[in-house]
Order: sequence, then C-alpha cells, then structure tokens
Amino acid sequence: MYKILKKDGRAKRAEFTTVHGTVQTPVFMNVGTVAAIKGAVATSDLEQIGTQIELSNTYHLHVRPGDQVVKKLGGLHKFMSWDKPILTDSGGFQVFSLSSLRKIKEEGVYFNSHIDGRKIFMGPEESMQIQSNLASTIAMAFDECAPALAERDYVEKSVARTTRWLARCKAEMQRLNSLPDTINQNQLLFGINQGAIYEDIRIEHAKEISQMDLDGYAIGGLAVGETHEDMYRIIEAVTPYLPEDKPTYLMGVGTPANILEAVDRGVDFFDCVYPSRNGRHGHLYTNLGKINLFNAKYELDDRPIEEGCQCPACRRYSRAYIRHLLKAKEMLGMRLCVLHNLYFYNTMMTEIRDAIDRGEYQAYKKRKLDGMMNGQV
Amino acid sequence: MYKILKKDGRAKRAEFTTVHGTVQTPVFMNVGTVAAIKGAVATSDLEQIGTQIELSNTYHLHVRPGDQVVKKLGGLHKFMSWDKPILTDSGGFQVFSLSSLRKIKEEGVYFNSHIDGRKIFMGPEESMQIQSNLASTIAMAFDECAPALAERDYVEKSVARTTRWLARCKAEMQRLNSLPDTINQNQLLFGINQGAIYEDIRIEHAKEISQMDLDGYAIGGLAVGETHEDMYRIIEAVTPYLPEDKPTYLMGVGTPANILEAVDRGVDFFDCVYPSRNGRHGHLYTNLGKINLFNAKYELDDRPIEEGCQCPACRRYSRAYIRHLLKAKEMLGMRLCVLHNLYFYNTMMTEIRDAIDRGEYQAYKKRKLDGMMNGQV
Ligand SMILES: [Zn+2]
Ligand SMILES: [Zn+2]
Repeated sequence: MYKILKKDGRAKRAEFTTVHGTVQTPVFMNVGTVAAIKGAVATSDLEQIGTQIELSNTYHLHVRPGDQVVKKLGGLHKFMSWDKPILTDSGGFQVFSLSSLRKIKEEGVYFNSHIDGRKIFMGPEESMQIQSNLASTIAMAFDECAPALAERDYVEKSVARTTRWLARCKAEMQRLNSLPDTINQNQLLFGINQGAIYEDIRIEHAKEISQMDLDGYAIGGLAVGETHEDMYRIIEAVTPYLPEDKPTYLMGVGTPANILEAVDRGVDFFDCVYPSRNGRHGHLYTNLGKINLFNAKYELDDRPIEEGCQCPACRRYSRAYIRHLLKAKEMLGMRLCVLHNLYFYNTMMTEIRDAIDRGEYQAYKKRKLDGMMNGQV
Repeated sequence: MYKILKKDGRAKRAEFTTVHGTVQTPVFMNVGTVAAIKGAVATSDLEQIGTQIELSNTYHLHVRPGDQVVKKLGGLHKFMSWDKPILTDSGGFQVFSLSSLRKIKEEGVYFNSHIDGRKIFMGPEESMQIQSNLASTIAMAFDECAPALAERDYVEKSVARTTRWLARCKAEMQRLNSLPDTINQNQLLFGINQGAIYEDIRIEHAKEISQMDLDGYAIGGLAVGETHEDMYRIIEAVTPYLPEDKPTYLMGVGTPANILEAVDRGVDFFDCVYPSRNGRHGHLYTNLGKINLFNAKYELDDRPIEEGCQCPACRRYSRAYIRHLLKAKEMLGMRLCVLHNLYFYNTMMTEIRDAIDRGEYQAYKKRKLDGMMNGQV
C-alpha cells in the first residue's frame, strides 16, 4: 500500500507498506547484486548505514547459486538474513547487457550464461517464476531495455512487445502468488515504462501500462548512454502519465544530482551501483564534493572522510588510514569506503524526505547541489 | 607486569599488564600485517570476536605507509583505531623470507624492498627505531631466523650474532623510550631465542638471553619447515631455561593442536596467519574438525558453520549462504569465514585459560583434540 504523506511541487513524500515492512520514500535501494553488497558489506552492516530496502539481481542469482537453491533455503530474505524489503530486477537488463549471443523472440530471449556459456531461455513467465522462487518483496516485470540510441522503428516494436510481456508477467505473477508452496504469496509487481528518448512513445506506453493496475511503475531504459538533459526531459514528460497513487521507480539512476532532480519530477525509488562501485575505487561522496582517497594529499590527513558523518568509517577511521588500506589493497579499505558512500546516499534520502515534509524541497536541493558542486573538501 | 595466577603442570595461567591494558594469557594474537586483518576485518569487528591483542608487521609498515607516516599520525593505535595492546615483530623474519637479495653483516641486513626494489638497510637500531615510531605496546628484538635445516656451524654463528644484536636492541630501546617525542615511552621489548633444532644451542642461547632482563621471551625459528615432533621437542627443552616470571611467546605457531601442545609446555603468547588465511579460502575450524565450504555438500546446508558458535558469521548466516558468497568471489564470504576462524581461535584460548584455572588442562586438551580429530562435522 502506497500512501502520499505530503507533496512539495511534484516531489512526493510517501510510505510504501509491504509484508516485509514499510519503506519511507523517496528511497535509495542498496544494490546487492548476488545477495550481498560488494565490498564485504553484510546485512548486519546495513542496519548501521540506514538501508531501508535492498535490491538483488534475478539473472545473477538464477545462474548462481540458482533460484531453486534459494527457494529450498527459504527465499532471499532467509538466505541473506535480511527481514526488510527486497526488490529483484527482472533479469532482462542483464540478459541484454551481459550476453553477447542472444535472440529476442515473441516468447522471450535465448542467450548464453556469462558464467559457463550454457544456453538459457528467459521470458516473462520464467522471470516471474525465478523471482517467485527468490521470494523478493517486489518483482520487476520482464522487459526489453532498448539501446539509448535505437531507431524509432525498433523502439516502437520493442515497446509493443514489452507491453505484451507485461500482461503475461501479471498473469503469471497472479498464478504464482496463488500456489500453496509459494514463499511470498504477497509478492508485488512493478511494470516498466520504455521508449528510449522518444517522448511520445514513452507517454503512450505510460498510459497503456497505467491501465494495468500494477503495484508500482518504473521508468527503465534511462542512464544507458543518453545525456542528462534527455534523461530529465523524459522523466518530466512521463511521470504525469504514471498513476500518482503508485510509487515511481527510476531504474539504475544515479548520481546524487540525478536523484535530486528526479525527486523533483515525482520519482520515489532509486537504485544505482555508483556508491558501492566508486567506493571500491576510493572515490567518496561528501557534501562538499567528491574525494579520491588515492590522492597523495590525504597521506597524513587524520580527519574522517567527512567531518560529522556518522557512518561506521567516519566514526572511527581517518582518511590517512583508509588511504593506506586502499593502497595496500586491503579489502577493509574498500569496505569502509562502500559503507561511507551508501551511508551518504541513504542519509541524502532522509534529508530529501525531511525537506519535502517541511515543504522546503527547492531550497534543500539548491543548497545540496551547491555544496557538492562548489564546496572545498 | 606479568603475574602468574595459576599453574597446571607446566601450563601457565597469567596476566600481562601493559600501558594499553591487561592481557589474559595464554593468548592468541590476531595478525593484522599492514595494520588491518586481511578479509575486510575492522578493529571494530575485533571487539565482537574476543581479540585481546593485535600483531602488526614492522617490515610491511616500514615500506608502506612508512613508520614516519604512522608516527606523524600518532602511532599504530591511533592509526588503526585500536586501544588494546599491539605487538610488532622486528621485521627480521620478513627481511629473511621476502627478500631474495640480501646481505647479512654484523651491523645488520642490506636488502631490496619487495614493493619497489629500493635498497633498505635494517639492523637492531633501525628495527627499534621503526617500532618506536609505530609505538606498539611490545617490540620484538631484531634477530636472524636461520633456516630450519641450517648447518650447525651456520646456526652457532647466527645465534651468537643474534645475541649481540639483542644487546644493541635493548640499549637502543632504552634510549628511544627516554626521548621526549617518543609516543610510547613504555614500549616493552621481548628477546628471541634461536638455534634451529639444535637443543644444546637453543638452551645455551636461552640461558644467555635470560640474563638480560627483558620484558618477555620468544621462541623464534620454529614452524619454518621442521617436523611437529622436532618443534615440540625444542619447546619442551627450551622453556625451562626461559624466566618463568616472564611471558613466553611461540612465534608464528600454529594449528589449534600446536597451540594446545605448546601451552602444555609453558607457552603464553601465540600468533599465526592460519585462521585468517584459511578463512579466506573457505577452510573453517570447528570443534568437530575442519570444513571446506567449497564442498558441494554444503550447497543446501542451512546450518551455521558451527552450531552454537557465537561469532558474527554463525549468529546470522548459513553454510549455504557463505558458500555461495565464496563461489561468487564476494569479499563478504571471506570476511565471514575469517571472523569465524579468529573467533574459534580466541574462544579456544578462553577455554584453555578456564581449564588451567580449574586445574583440568589435561582433560580439556584431550577432549578438544579428540573432537577436532575424530568429530563428525
Ligand atoms: Zn562517513
Ligand atoms: Zn562461527
């Protein structure tokens, strides 16, 4: 159940209630691709960094350890020891981005595993079955994420197929949720809007899927190579045509600035690998801009990554120490950086929610962007 | 200050008081080579796994980040955020094992850095200066660790030089501890007994260094290729000639069985990379024997690594989950395994102390060894 608590312009402050607890939105989902956040971050750490919801990848878990294994072990929540909400993607994005050999048909996609090359078929029904086995809180519909610069003609056909796939996803999900041995019989389904950067195709598609009474709606196929301007233009154009009384999820986005802009255009849910991936490379977010901890100027810097930050890294360790760990290739260096970056993102979402609650989102957004762009770290 | 609380045969139950707190012995020191325990284990984790004392490596820290850097940052305790005791080795072992190009002279050793090949000189004074900069709780004397199978003639000359070096270490340490800008003016110095597997050389050397009134005594040059029988024979022969009112440290040893046997021969301090190194490879210690988590039979095993274990891995995660993480090369898998193994070692030391306190060390040792050798995991 999605309930809007407050609006500030188009920014929505809401809460989304699931069988695994309530999520306060706007929210950033912390990405744990194979049922763990990269950088040796355990679910026990997530409680310290303010994680509300975790995202795992259907394709990756299907090939290893296998969704049947996860089902036998009681589902993802039990498997990774996490009792709050989990969203799984549909596997579609990985199928389209990781497999070089693939054939798209009306029934679904034939492709080779990126691990051992074996042939796999995945269509709407298979994706729903895998996600039902994983027993995530929210399943994503199986769609085709067309390339950012795809031709109009290709995109039209692809979007039409994605719509047909969505109807099949919904039917299959209803069937699965009614089976007695389904772990999470309340699994939710989000549909995905596609259409590359063609506004009219996007809007038509948004109108169509809005009729299908899904639990939430995602904007997919962005942040895949188009400009930021195109991305903001598409979000701005599409969100008015998605149901306001359902959550809106902008998939795979993005930088702190991207999130601030998208919230302003009505988006509730986000996910992105940037904080964990950048953290593993010593690139850190602060309110005064980014830091590259490999920089020699931090060799003797005994300050935390960010003064006042309450993350497990900053509460205890200095830039100089973490820099040393990174240079010595000690995993702990990566772990501390990932914890800081995720905490930064999660804390920014808390600030965003507070700002909307107070009706001061514009002022907050401006202040935050100014600090990150023009601050002196 | 070392105070024996109880004896049970030759097993000693004692406590060792330092400026960084009191260590209950027998104790296992957790190895953090470059000021961090490998496997993304932070000092904040150490409190959860019962670590009393950490060990770092002088040679590694000298080449990176540099002991001057650590000194400027306030010493190792502040650098790694750890307020309990730290022991640093002398750097000698690494100089002799990591450098292929080295020349041993009376003044010390000339060798090339294993990182960038640059020429380094290290003698007793340099080792003490580096360790004083690191400001560890306990510094180790600079010695030569002769190969296990070295000729008698070579060992005699080497040990004589190690004795001369020890006198220089002691003088230099006294000088450094009296300097106003020394961070830890109470730094302790342990001498090291050498002599390969020649009992008579070992005993003569033990007698000599026992006269030098050091803060503790180590048995070095074991677990370097000799048999376990030779190792136990040497420990048994040497400990009676080391001061009973000082701690005895068996360097680089070893398996749980090695530790149980050595405690029985009067040893107090241990260190070894086995628990962390084995953990990173999915090899786990339990009271019923070792587990290799890569084994397919754990794929669906929802039990913890060891039933009843209170470590952060077992309190929350299953064998199946950790196995999946290891197979997917997720750092978290290694981290959880290292935490379990260190907890296993630290807990065994607690059991050892309790058994000595109760005067039941023999029965405990037999039971523990039986379980590990003949148990069904
Ligand atoms: Zn922080
Ligand atoms: Zn355990």
